[in-house]
Amino acid sequence: MRLYIGLVHFPVYNKNYQRIASAITTIDLHDIARLARTYAAKRFFVITPLDDQQRLAERIRSHWTNGYGARYNRHRKEAIELVEIVPSLEQAIDAIRAMEGEAPLVMATDASRQKHRAMSYERARCIIRSDRAVILIFGTAWGLDQSVMERADYVLDPVLGRTDYNHLSVRTAAAIILDRVAGR
Amino acid sequence: MRLYIGLVHFPVYNKNYQRIASAITTIDLHDIARLARTYAAKRFFVITPLDDQQRLAERIRSHWTNGYGARYNRHRKEAIELVEIVPSLEQAIDAIRAMEGEAPLVMATDASRQKHRAMSYERARCIIRSDRAVILIFGTAWGLDQSVMERADYVLDPVLGRTDYNHLSVRTAAAIILDRVAGR
Repeated sequence: MRLYIGLVHFPVYNKNYQRIASAITTIDLHDIARLARTYAAKRFFVITPLDDQQRLAERIRSHWTNGYGARYNRHRKEAIELVEIVPSLEQAIDAIRAMEGEAPLVMATDASRQKHRAMSYERARCIIRSDRAVILIFGTAWGLDQSVMERADYVLDPVLGRTDYNHLSVRTAAAIILDRVAGR
Repeated sequence: MRLYIGLVHFPVYNKNYQRIASAITTIDLHDIARLARTYAAKRFFVITPLDDQQRLAERIRSHWTNGYGARYNRHRKEAIELVEIVPSLEQAIDAIRAMEGEAPLVMATDASRQKHRAMSYERARCIIRSDRAVILIFGTAWGLDQSVMERADYVLDPVLGRTDYNHLSVRTAAAIILDRVAGR
């Protein structure tokens, strides 16, 4: 498995479907880094073009990997070490290409139905298991901008539970999706 | 399915394995309420004996069900409406007994291995599907106190991904567990 995770803060939608850059949420970094460590992702890219947001993410990263946090909680250190902060999805892809010798497949997640493109979890699981490099990307705020969807090679089915309600947080949706596509 | 969820703030362990009452985390209430709604749980009990913490949880609940939040985001309202604040696990059980006409089975979750008691997700899924009333309980802080474990009828296997790392947040662990035991 050569799985990478990306959390996209730009371009994403706000509540009114305008294209924005969202703010870093500390708890998303912690929760998704721990998921990355749990499901053996090779790296967790935090994607934001904003300087101050990159600095914030960097400060969180160094607190838990070199600072007091690293001594306080070594389990957290092991997870946060997977975090890499990059300004764009393209730069995450470049970083993966440099490590893997090939560009990764881009697999996007989306809470709304993209009728023509949606891919089942079973199929996603096969692709990830086939040992192709894959970056699984999650959108913050009201979801990934259409331009990111068009850049993606695949778009996963929305997460459904037992009802038609699909308004989960990105943290909990990422947990369910990772368990489905990368669990044992 | 007659599934209930409980988030226990007392008695739980702190980092040094002392018994404590943990503080309410707003984000846990939101994330787990949305999971409850997604997986058709009938109610989500927030369990804390502390008056000020009960008031805090109540304030969150009314903001999103009656206050500004209810108008701002109706999806959140639908989820937060499932929240009920009770002082103890026993009172959650009593409330379920009053609704269902029978006491629920208590299914505890635990990140550490309880060798003699751990139950598989498959078995848990069968029990939940059998239409017995069940309350699935999650511990905050460093997990459920031993006395709660002893009270439980079942203890679920810890969540494992592809590694032996099992230090997820309660929010993301709850997401994975609910998808495994109550997903389609």
